[in-house]
Amino acid sequence: MLIRDLDQVESQEMTMPGAEKVTMRLMVGREDGAPHFAMRCFDVEPGGCTPLHQHNYEHEILIMEGEGKVAQDTGDGEVEFQPIKAGDVLFVRANELHQFRNDSDANLRFMCMVPTQFDCGGGNLSDTPGS
Amino acid sequence: MLIRDLDQVESQEMTMPGAEKVTMRLMVGREDGAPHFAMRCFDVEPGGCTPLHQHNYEHEILIMEGEGKVAQDTGDGEVEFQPIKAGDVLFVRANELHQFRNDSDANLRFMCMVPTQFDCGGGNLSDTPGS
Repeated sequence: MLIRDLDQVESQEMTMPGAEKVTMRLMVGREDGAPHFAMRCFDVEPGGCTPLHQHNYEHEILIMEGEGKVAQDTGDGEVEFQPIKAGDVLFVRANELHQFRNDSDANLRFMCMVPTQFDCGGGNLSDTPGS
Repeated sequence: MLIRDLDQVESQEMTMPGAEKVTMRLMVGREDGAPHFAMRCFDVEPGGCTPLHQHNYEHEILIMEGEGKVAQDTGDGEVEFQPIKAGDVLFVRANELHQFRNDSDANLRFMCMVPTQFDCGGGNLSDTPGS
């Protein structure tokens, strides 16, 4: 059994184009022998955001602290934002457009689960909404 | 995209033999179309515990609030308990013995991810440590 204190795990800056003021901690991943899914913890500083993108795998997300907004595709090529807060759980299906923005003055932290093979991104990624 | 407030999701008592004072909320599961893994939130009241058991699939767990203890197999047929607290992440590998106990005076809450086919338990389950 592996037990890791989140605060003791090294964080790395998210360098993916479109990411601003985002760091990531890989809590459980393929290198730990996780057979199906990986857990990553993201911190988005005030004013920061994750990329507005979509990809061919799902996310399951728990907002751990703070608040912000998540982008959703309206279905007609437009993007709208919905508020999110600590205690919310999100299921972002494969190929659904999404982005997390922190427009508050406190840290936004969420745990994001993905299939193990994409534990540090990858897959069929598109940064072009609607493409 | 599915967004669910944890506090708005109905909780159900965990009736599995060995569970005491445990409730569960299924946050994302197979009925939502989750293809790979499910998220369940567990609350263990003071004095409560989950079953001491093992099964043929893994758990990935985030302790969300409170503190308690988790059972670990020492490898020689004995069980020892280690402290856990909010912010800890656990990877319980397939067939590893485990149990969560809340010996504090406050609620213990954790998110537990499993492969989707086991989102409400099942699989090859053993309640007999070491069997």
